[in-house]
Amino acid sequence: MPTFEESLKRTAGEINNRISELLPQPDGPEARVIEAMRYAMEAPGKRLRPFLIVQSGRLFGIETEKMNRVAVALECVHTFSLIHDDLPCMDDDDLRRGRPTVHKAFDEATAVLAGDALLAFAFELLGSERTHQDPFVRCELVTHMSKAVGAHGMIGGQMIDLSIQTLPQDIPTITRLQRLKTGALFAFACESGAIMGRAGRDSRHALDAYAHDLGLAFQIADDILDVEGSSEELGKAAQKDDDAGKATFISILGLDRAKAQAQMLADQAKCHLDMFDERADLLREAADFVVKRRN
Amino acid sequence: MPTFEESLKRTAGEINNRISELLPQPDGPEARVIEAMRYAMEAPGKRLRPFLIVQSGRLFGIETEKMNRVAVALECVHTFSLIHDDLPCMDDDDLRRGRPTVHKAFDEATAVLAGDALLAFAFELLGSERTHQDPFVRCELVTHMSKAVGAHGMIGGQMIDLSIQTLPQDIPTITRLQRLKTGALFAFACESGAIMGRAGRDSRHALDAYAHDLGLAFQIADDILDVEGSSEELGKAAQKDDDAGKATFISILGLDRAKAQAQMLADQAKCHLDMFDERADLLREAADFVVKRRN
Repeated sequence: MPTFEESLKRTAGEINNRISELLPQPDGPEARVIEAMRYAMEAPGKRLRPFLIVQSGRLFGIETEKMNRVAVALECVHTFSLIHDDLPCMDDDDLRRGRPTVHKAFDEATAVLAGDALLAFAFELLGSERTHQDPFVRCELVTHMSKAVGAHGMIGGQMIDLSIQTLPQDIPTITRLQRLKTGALFAFACESGAIMGRAGRDSRHALDAYAHDLGLAFQIADDILDVEGSSEELGKAAQKDDDAGKATFISILGLDRAKAQAQMLADQAKCHLDMFDERADLLREAADFVVKRRN
Repeated sequence: MPTFEESLKRTAGEINNRISELLPQPDGPEARVIEAMRYAMEAPGKRLRPFLIVQSGRLFGIETEKMNRVAVALECVHTFSLIHDDLPCMDDDDLRRGRPTVHKAFDEATAVLAGDALLAFAFELLGSERTHQDPFVRCELVTHMSKAVGAHGMIGGQMIDLSIQTLPQDIPTITRLQRLKTGALFAFACESGAIMGRAGRDSRHALDAYAHDLGLAFQIADDILDVEGSSEELGKAAQKDDDAGKATFISILGLDRAKAQAQMLADQAKCHLDMFDERADLLREAADFVVKRRN
């Protein structure tokens, strides 16, 4: 039996290959934007969201090959959000995944366009017949993804993050911020298997609840890493939040209570998987992984 | 019989109402991004692309109500592109449709996010059951739209526009630029009726050819307006291209030949509609309109 880390690495390797195959080719006078898309997508990453997608498909017997296409689509959306969030007018970051951010390696205009094109491309992948033979399923992927991304999803979360200084700095606000900013894509990832497998409401609710707790645990762990980790380990600037005076789970709860909260959420996430058999074991391990990871 | 201008105005009025109904509500701490989306979408516009969509649906007997949803989706995409193109790192425009651009009325970060959210929302609309009962048709709308928007579509066109100084300043390059930047969405607009009506290949080819000529005629007319019009009439900065030393159809062909070329393309566009009966009359008139308009 491969360990959790080996499974995660294996999925990352497969996804990296699929990214390279599926993304548009850098042809024509517009090649520069595609080079920027590929630069951002080919940066080394844990590929945790793709892993959740593949594992959620496994619960319903969906071939990895099909789930990989959904995973590449989600990774396009995740990468689009990183490119735009790193822009000077947003978080103004120079380093991402250990390399210069897209607007540093190319330029700001190309970074905006590369993000835009990755978002559009995600929907091209989901709408394609090769992703699922049933167009009803493909439409469901499209509408769920667009809601997860949109103004009341991930983008809304980034909007809250940018206006956090003007909002009450309390746990409900921070929870809503993270539920949208990180949680919405986690929820899409975990539900995608249920959509592909046309699973019933109970499975979907269970996976949604799992994703919600997992996303919050992931985010608190991120805040802890931001305080405890070095930029070298993280591959991006450390202690950004503290420097910016941003409210986080740690600034409100303190480090010890934040750590306990992350572990509690990870344990709770696992409980939501009780209705699934041992095919959910890697999702159970994923919950521990998100709070124990070092980057 | 209403005149062409009356029909265009009527569609614009209907689309404005649908925009107001369909866009997300500005709720929650993320409301700011939705206010920016609505600000940009509610700016007065000719709504020419929506008009093309409604008229292309008419050729195949599709209810205006259904086509209006596709039209709002396309207008979201068009508006997203305007918001991002106006950003300081792109064309750096302060005025659009006679009002401050989104990054001026709000701020740059909100403008980036509002554009992103409009793009995502377009796919939510297209994927929804209310747009068409057949999920196969909805998937076709999604994949055609994403290609029209993407790296080898509108976004690729903007990439070429930004790098035009490094490319050969000739008619093939300018034609490719405009074919992607303006033409791709025109083509989607004109083909959408055929997709919704599950029309055959001949109709689709005819509408694609019509859209291609119409888009180029529209763009040359835009270049002429940029030279001859005032900022007041245009509702945006005039003579931008000339000031920026950008190659346009006019800088290459001269004003008189550019005008003749635009009219020739409009006439040619009409010829592609020969297979359609009088239901295509407003599309025929649209070809003359794009070269005769004053803004």
